[in-house]
Amino acid sequence: MRVLVTGGTGFIGRWAAASLAAAGHEVFVVSRKLATMPGCKIIVADLLDPSMAEVALAVSKPEVVLHLAWDVEHGKFWDAEANLRWTVATIQLVSAAHQAGVRRIVCAGTCMEYDLSSGHACSEVETNIRPSTLYAVSKDAARRIIEELAATRGIEFAWGRLFFLFGPNEHPNRLVSSIVMNLLARRPVLMSSGVQVRDFTNVRDAGEALARLAVSKVNGAVNIASGEALRIKELAEEIRAVAGGVGELCFGALPDRPNEPPVIVADVTRLRNEVGYRPLRTMRDRLSETIQWWQARLEA
Amino acid sequence: MRVLVTGGTGFIGRWAAASLAAAGHEVFVVSRKLATMPGCKIIVADLLDPSMAEVALAVSKPEVVLHLAWDVEHGKFWDAEANLRWTVATIQLVSAAHQAGVRRIVCAGTCMEYDLSSGHACSEVETNIRPSTLYAVSKDAARRIIEELAATRGIEFAWGRLFFLFGPNEHPNRLVSSIVMNLLARRPVLMSSGVQVRDFTNVRDAGEALARLAVSKVNGAVNIASGEALRIKELAEEIRAVAGGVGELCFGALPDRPNEPPVIVADVTRLRNEVGYRPLRTMRDRLSETIQWWQARLEA
Repeated sequence: MRVLVTGGTGFIGRWAAASLAAAGHEVFVVSRKLATMPGCKIIVADLLDPSMAEVALAVSKPEVVLHLAWDVEHGKFWDAEANLRWTVATIQLVSAAHQAGVRRIVCAGTCMEYDLSSGHACSEVETNIRPSTLYAVSKDAARRIIEELAATRGIEFAWGRLFFLFGPNEHPNRLVSSIVMNLLARRPVLMSSGVQVRDFTNVRDAGEALARLAVSKVNGAVNIASGEALRIKELAEEIRAVAGGVGELCFGALPDRPNEPPVIVADVTRLRNEVGYRPLRTMRDRLSETIQWWQARLEA
Repeated sequence: MRVLVTGGTGFIGRWAAASLAAAGHEVFVVSRKLATMPGCKIIVADLLDPSMAEVALAVSKPEVVLHLAWDVEHGKFWDAEANLRWTVATIQLVSAAHQAGVRRIVCAGTCMEYDLSSGHACSEVETNIRPSTLYAVSKDAARRIIEELAATRGIEFAWGRLFFLFGPNEHPNRLVSSIVMNLLARRPVLMSSGVQVRDFTNVRDAGEALARLAVSKVNGAVNIASGEALRIKELAEEIRAVAGGVGELCFGALPDRPNEPPVIVADVTRLRNEVGYRPLRTMRDRLSETIQWWQARLEA
């Protein structure tokens, strides 16, 4: 299939694009900057300019659009005005894709769209929607509009809700990368209580799952996650074990955030049974890869 | 107060702008075409161009934006792609208004955002949101984003949900105007069963209510409606009585639409008690005005 991937050089997008190319699809990647991606054709375009979105569609003539581009600047994106610009760009891209005859549209959503107060695993079918940041509200609003457009125009539409990710190229201040870097540098790792339960997925696996969703026939929301409930404390200890037992984890050195949901975990029934995706590698393997990636960066 | 009214030359907007001007506010009206409005300053701008929205804000420097502009082409707007363009324009206008220091934003929503299956009066507080057309989904999505932006930025924000309207300048194919025109022309009026219960408001009253909401301190969704439950059959018979008993109403000549909600009526507690608005004229007075308006048009 001809697939246009936006954000295809990003943290998740690069793995989704690579996975699609490896499966034999013709992959076009939209990138703001010149880039090379093995097996993919690069289209340099800024999607915040709607005329460039139209050009990208005209050049690639895709059957499927996998739209992953969004501004997720670490520490800022939850409340940033950029969410409005990306909502606008997303609506404009989807509208242009429909005009260009695109058959299927798949976008990235977030676990933060769910009502997270229950403590149960988030189900696409049963859990209420109750986004609580400008980021999540914007994603949810875009999803509502695309869903209605798709339903009335006969476009296939799926919405992959991402949970917590880790892996190569992660921002160094995010949870897993900061634990890894501090442990490798033999610095004590200052942490909160670590009792929060989260669903962590390796970004390569998440990218592969999105690629599978993109070329599947599954419509609607699909959680892109591991389905494994892990305390942050357990995750940190696992990282330390895989890293060779180096360094020190200081739980309780930082306060827990107020109003933080105790449990954010995905029900992955749809991903497993309908999309048919199951990660091939274990959590330990993926952590090991990630640690090696950081090790190589630190030694370089 | 300095108020910028978008759609201020439109079906509802002209009454809202006139009401604000009559109350002594400094009113700027955005219009795509050159126009004159007594007591208002006209800014010619197309809000689908975001740079023109910025210019309109820079010229008027409003404290309050009353955003009523949207594409509601009769018979087409429910499912039209224009809803995407107006969602985009609305997000861009609100974002620009925030950047320009606007203190309060008031927009027009629709009764079609509600879950209309219950048959009860729609309450802003208690009725579920379940929009079912691209128009209503787009309005609802825009509202969700603006609400979150306003809450996190300390902007006042109100959302006036309009119910069924009638009055001067209504599209001739819409319910009340088509009944009036056919009766005045002595043509039999072909109607459905007429058993549907609706909340009809005169457009002057709706415009005045929106003007009051715009300069009030009330935030959140507010139904802009009469609160009166009227069968369409009763409404048609009232029109015929006010028109002098001319013509013939043929109920059942047309089929009822499938899946049409039997009851769409507003709970107007917020409008009455918080905004403090109550129409000064009776339904009969407003129908009489409307009939005279059409009579004058037909004779001209």
